[in-house]
Amino acid sequence: MLTLDKVYHAAFVLKQVARRTDLIEAPALGGAEKLYLKTENLQLTGSFKLRGAYYKISQLTEEERSRGIIACSAGNHAQGVALAASRMGIRSVVCMPDGAPISKVEATKAYGAEVVLVKGGYDDAYAHACRLRDETGMTFIHPFNDEQVIAGQGTIGLEILDQLPDVDTVLVPVGGGGLVSGVAFAVKSLNPNVRVYGVQAENAASMARSLEADKPLCLPSASTFADGIAVRQPGDTTFALCKDYVDGILTVTEDEIAAAILTLLEKQKMIAEGAGAVSVAAAIFGKLPVASRKAVCLVSGGNIDVNILSRVITRGLMTTGRNVQLRIALEDKPGQLVGVSQIISECGANVVNVVHNAGDIGSAVTSCFLTIGLETRDFAQIAEIKKRLTEHGFRIVE
Amino acid sequence: MLTLDKVYHAAFVLKQVARRTDLIEAPALGGAEKLYLKTENLQLTGSFKLRGAYYKISQLTEEERSRGIIACSAGNHAQGVALAASRMGIRSVVCMPDGAPISKVEATKAYGAEVVLVKGGYDDAYAHACRLRDETGMTFIHPFNDEQVIAGQGTIGLEILDQLPDVDTVLVPVGGGGLVSGVAFAVKSLNPNVRVYGVQAENAASMARSLEADKPLCLPSASTFADGIAVRQPGDTTFALCKDYVDGILTVTEDEIAAAILTLLEKQKMIAEGAGAVSVAAAIFGKLPVASRKAVCLVSGGNIDVNILSRVITRGLMTTGRNVQLRIALEDKPGQLVGVSQIISECGANVVNVVHNAGDIGSAVTSCFLTIGLETRDFAQIAEIKKRLTEHGFRIVE
Repeated sequence: MLTLDKVYHAAFVLKQVARRTDLIEAPALGGAEKLYLKTENLQLTGSFKLRGAYYKISQLTEEERSRGIIACSAGNHAQGVALAASRMGIRSVVCMPDGAPISKVEATKAYGAEVVLVKGGYDDAYAHACRLRDETGMTFIHPFNDEQVIAGQGTIGLEILDQLPDVDTVLVPVGGGGLVSGVAFAVKSLNPNVRVYGVQAENAASMARSLEADKPLCLPSASTFADGIAVRQPGDTTFALCKDYVDGILTVTEDEIAAAILTLLEKQKMIAEGAGAVSVAAAIFGKLPVASRKAVCLVSGGNIDVNILSRVITRGLMTTGRNVQLRIALEDKPGQLVGVSQIISECGANVVNVVHNAGDIGSAVTSCFLTIGLETRDFAQIAEIKKRLTEHGFRIVE
Repeated sequence: MLTLDKVYHAAFVLKQVARRTDLIEAPALGGAEKLYLKTENLQLTGSFKLRGAYYKISQLTEEERSRGIIACSAGNHAQGVALAASRMGIRSVVCMPDGAPISKVEATKAYGAEVVLVKGGYDDAYAHACRLRDETGMTFIHPFNDEQVIAGQGTIGLEILDQLPDVDTVLVPVGGGGLVSGVAFAVKSLNPNVRVYGVQAENAASMARSLEADKPLCLPSASTFADGIAVRQPGDTTFALCKDYVDGILTVTEDEIAAAILTLLEKQKMIAEGAGAVSVAAAIFGKLPVASRKAVCLVSGGNIDVNILSRVITRGLMTTGRNVQLRIALEDKPGQLVGVSQIISECGANVVNVVHNAGDIGSAVTSCFLTIGLETRDFAQIAEIKKRLTEHGFRIVE
């Protein structure tokens, strides 16, 4: 049974390796009277997973260690296991789905694990890891449904209470539930008055649905770009702990997660992955059921693929008026492009791409479409550009 | 004259407002045996400038405060002054060039300053601020050439020595020289054995050139995307302090700065602006003249325009093989696009944009060019795609 003793013991063991990550006040984010970020995205390996993996592995017997360890993960647990095993001089094998971002695969190798790429998704990687465990006798390290892993994650709860003794609300991302189980258990055991909420992506709300049904359910799919929490089914241990210690599971949409990532990037100068940003998304989009004076959002990780980040930024720029694509119908006669560019330049916007194509489908024979991408200041500037283009006889196609 | 007393006094005063920013070990970056980041990009207002501005304003007389304060800045000093003045209940006016990123203008307003947008560049904003000072009698707060401002920035030096007593090297971004003067003075006064280097953008190396010439020089231009250190001329006070306390000025290229920003983002999960990343660029691109066992890179700020960040990422993805634009010559007959997309899909790359244009200039009458943007894993994958396209008779135009 999980006890506070075990969490304290984990904290003692983790002093050897884990960073006591900073708790940063985020005045610009809003959502609670005061909002703080527990920055596990700045943890070694880029996520909290190191804590549980390291503590679990440190508690193995000599015999279990000697057989080597095996795990399966799409990213963060992989890196945590790899680093932990290397530090303790243990061989580790990690099964990863072959679609995992190359950066996560490379990082896992760099931390010292042997990586086995398995065709398919997480479930296939999991099945393959179990097969390897059975064949080789290696010791399996579960990513969340394990009491010692949960005790390791719970050390974050101890740190939060130490860093902000009068916190009233803690928001924690939930995939399989290991993190929220540990944090809620530690926090509630020390101060039952603190509210602890889990946060899931609306499209992968397995813990929320399971708590409603009062038993662990398996969702048919878990489709969210927050890959770190795309888990179809909670564990039985984590389910039981959530039932006892968590005040509720909040859900956020994909757009809200993307907006939270962009907000963290612009206002707080830090990178969160989708899974890491759901806690912040819940706070800034007003999902808290009870008003908070001092809330902590646990930002659980920062391992986002840069291609995905780039898309989040681009979309964020468009939804905030700092980037726009205009489609303009031009008469097919000389000087038209000059006229358009002149107006854009006078308005102070910056052209980033142009497609000018006579004979475009949908245009009349004597006209064509100009598609032009602009960096803009805000929606007011975009409106001004449109107004002046229209005044000069150019037709903007919406 | 600057004394250690004043720096300690500044540290005491700043306890009211500034964050004691974390010193984070950055194992993955290389460059020194151990590399640490002093994360002033996570400071309130997103840069160290708050320290100098707040300390300076706190030391004004009642009479000086009552006249209000005026400053000029393209961004970070503006926000520091605005927040500091608001906290002390003083009116502030900040002149900013009208080309300053809207996000910095908005942030400055949000911190409570009145913003005057001045047509032109930094020099024009400076001239306008001086005019306003003369007309209104407001108290001018210089961004760097001021002993109390320098004492405020010097508090970072105290913190570094406290957080890593056996540091041997400190790398500090240099624009006008206020930050490096303060840090070098504090560090050298306490431990003359620590080496302190300034780092400038090659295209704006005003302090480097001035030290070579043994007098403050004014460069004809200071053209770098690291806008926070695009300063044409150091101050006389900062020049004198650099001459006495700094071991040398290193320079880095625009590409090195961009690479450092991307590295910080991917490996350390934090956003640095160009000016903030030059210290890291110097370390990872081997500019240190003496080998270091424990080096601290001062990451001075994180206020980068998101449009610029987006471009840094895109370019970084291309230079690391995770994004590619291919131009393929196609015969003008049915089924060609299918063939190309089939191969790309089989290789596991992801199509992000396509321009397919018969009648492209440079193509023969019976052929056309397909330009296609892909998200890729690495250069090996790109090579594989090119090889298979060529094998299937498609000609890739470099």
